Amino acid sequence: MPEISLRGMQMPASPIRKLAPLSDAAKSKGIKVYHLNIGQPDLDSPRSALDAIRNIERNTLEYSPSDGYRFYRENLVKYYAKYHIELSPEQIIVTSGGSEAVLYAFMACLNPGDEIIVPEPAYANYMAFAVSAGAVIRTIPSDMESSFKLPDIEKFEELINPRTKGILICNPNNPTGYVYTADEMEAIRLLVKKYNLYLFSDEVYREFIYTDTPYVSACHLKGIEDNVVLIDSVSKRYSECGIRIGALITKNKTLHDTVMKFCQARLSPPLIGQIAANASLDAGDAYMQHNFDEYLQRRNFLLERLNKIPGVYSPIPMGAFYTLAKLPVEDTDDFCAWCLSDFEYEGQTIFMAPASGFYVTPELGKNEVRIAYVLNIDDMGKALVVLEKALEKYKQLKQ
Amino acid sequence: MPEISLRGMQMPASPIRKLAPLSDAAKSKGIKVYHLNIGQPDLDSPRSALDAIRNIERNTLEYSPSDGYRFYRENLVKYYAKYHIELSPEQIIVTSGGSEAVLYAFMACLNPGDEIIVPEPAYANYMAFAVSAGAVIRTIPSDMESSFKLPDIEKFEELINPRTKGILICNPNNPTGYVYTADEMEAIRLLVKKYNLYLFSDEVYREFIYTDTPYVSACHLKGIEDNVVLIDSVSKRYSECGIRIGALITKNKTLHDTVMKFCQARLSPPLIGQIAANASLDAGDAYMQHNFDEYLQRRNFLLERLNKIPGVYSPIPMGAFYTLAKLPVEDTDDFCAWCLSDFEYEGQTIFMAPASGFYVTPELGKNEVRIAYVLNIDDMGKALVVLEKALEKYKQLKQ
Repeated sequence: MPEISLRGMQMPASPIRKLAPLSDAAKSKGIKVYHLNIGQPDLDSPRSALDAIRNIERNTLEYSPSDGYRFYRENLVKYYAKYHIELSPEQIIVTSGGSEAVLYAFMACLNPGDEIIVPEPAYANYMAFAVSAGAVIRTIPSDMESSFKLPDIEKFEELINPRTKGILICNPNNPTGYVYTADEMEAIRLLVKKYNLYLFSDEVYREFIYTDTPYVSACHLKGIEDNVVLIDSVSKRYSECGIRIGALITKNKTLHDTVMKFCQARLSPPLIGQIAANASLDAGDAYMQHNFDEYLQRRNFLLERLNKIPGVYSPIPMGAFYTLAKLPVEDTDDFCAWCLSDFEYEGQTIFMAPASGFYVTPELGKNEVRIAYVLNIDDMGKALVVLEKALEKYKQLKQ
Repeated sequence: MPEISLRGMQMPASPIRKLAPLSDAAKSKGIKVYHLNIGQPDLDSPRSALDAIRNIERNTLEYSPSDGYRFYRENLVKYYAKYHIELSPEQIIVTSGGSEAVLYAFMACLNPGDEIIVPEPAYANYMAFAVSAGAVIRTIPSDMESSFKLPDIEKFEELINPRTKGILICNPNNPTGYVYTADEMEAIRLLVKKYNLYLFSDEVYREFIYTDTPYVSACHLKGIEDNVVLIDSVSKRYSECGIRIGALITKNKTLHDTVMKFCQARLSPPLIGQIAANASLDAGDAYMQHNFDEYLQRRNFLLERLNKIPGVYSPIPMGAFYTLAKLPVEDTDDFCAWCLSDFEYEGQTIFMAPASGFYVTPELGKNEVRIAYVLNIDDMGKALVVLEKALEKYKQLKQ
């Protein structure tokens, strides 16, 4: 049988995925598994989106344009204007989820061997897309004690070399929930300008910022307009992960036209997803406020309860719907697996994401987990009881 | 501004895309443009698919599994069994269109610099996906005089070297409409086995075979099960290009698991598209027969009329819904552009795909065009009158 590619061998397998069979096995034994592991919102998608799908008036489900329907891009221009991001429809490319936007950004910007710098912990799939493009991710650890604020700029400069082509940030951050301050964004702007780097900015959680920290988009930064690549997605803001609609936004015409060559090769983004995403722009303030309030309430509940469990610590996340927590165990890969394979409390257990998958530097995050607050408060309360009981039992076992 | 990637610069821009602005300009002048240029079927999608979309019963449009819904893969197993392709659901990965299947197949199988051999003319986007993966496409010309049959196996062997990792075929063929015979498929089987190559086989047009030539799938070939990667899509068979649902099929477990790492990074294929594709399996024999009959009638009409135009020649395509025709002009890139920019007949003109985009070898296909028969017979008749008038006028201009 022919060999698979080196790239295929290097592709990281997500630690969450490795635990999925254990979760399935627990469920098959009748155990209730609380999913704190994935960013799959449980909230309803907007009624306007579901109605648009149900009222679809087409007889042929045809290709849409490779950069997405113009009516949708025109409506997106209005959406971004509300965040003081001034765009034209020609600067927006509709993609198959934020995932495709990251992949094509890397494909269009990075040669094999080129490096990008990413604060860690970071969304695990950035590493996978870098491997796909043959690029190298260099990481700088951020620090739980400082709520995962931006690492010192000197740390970035230490890593910069002739192969360095860009910086990637996720703001608000998955997995930490940190939101970069105006000062931090200014520091990034100066760095990007000084070294003429790309700034890839994943801002899919902008709707969910719970502090007074103002949202500063990479698109707000002056003088680096040709360097910025904004990654976006409707998955999180409208609970529409399944429709696979994202966006790649750049004011750099050469880069836009290059990304379009990759988009033309794959023909078009999903048609029905675009119809749903476009209608979601009419979801209404009440819908958005309800979801915001719900996540805020969950965050407050989760963090208060979590930090009361002996030995557990988590800084208060400022945005998104995750928190990174330190547990009183040595190895969360082992603990999270054990929760699924060998533990239950009153017929229930928990599925959390070990943080090791969000770090590139070995040994970092070994005692951390990512918890997504995508369960209602009632279930989250039950899950936290299970977590406390699991930690007690696990501690006894390890003594 | 930072540099774009070499890969981005090397990505081919489709000759059809280059002509699109001319087509838009013609339309803005009120000229009726007959689209013979793209494989966008005009026929209705199945009623069962449209109904499934309109009756969607979900409140949250959530992620589907990275390899697609199991119920859909189980139903696909039954679909393939009708073509004597025996599969299990674990051998099928649902992708975002056939495009993603080709890209991930190349990503998982080919290292940068690895070569695959493809008979030309070939679907232009294979070249784009090869550039994306850093792979090299080597082509062997097939021949219009022999209806584009498989080139001699010796021609393949001449190109095989240590970097050769696979062969790619499209069967029934886009753009030629050729269907490989059982003898040709056996020759491919022996070659693949002898050199331990991957066989990438794009079979998205299997529903549309108009001759007595039996459909031999790469999956029918014995003894090379671990080498075969089947590329599929519902776009053409159900007129559902927009829902972006394809499949990558392999019995090679290592390759399957490697492709899955790319699929997990991009999270999931489109949710609503899968619901539509699954319901399309219930389209019914009458629907499939109607579409088959319609394409067959169009093919017969097109080819008879086309071959009556002075200086025009096209072999009779055996399958798919394209034909490659030789025109009495020196450069179809110029002629096709001229039809859109400087010609009209009674307020109408035609948009055809110059064949140069389907060839890698320079100068091949310069006097050929691909015509897609995705117009009803009435419109196709009018388009052919326009073609004849255009050729007359163009000939006068060039004299």
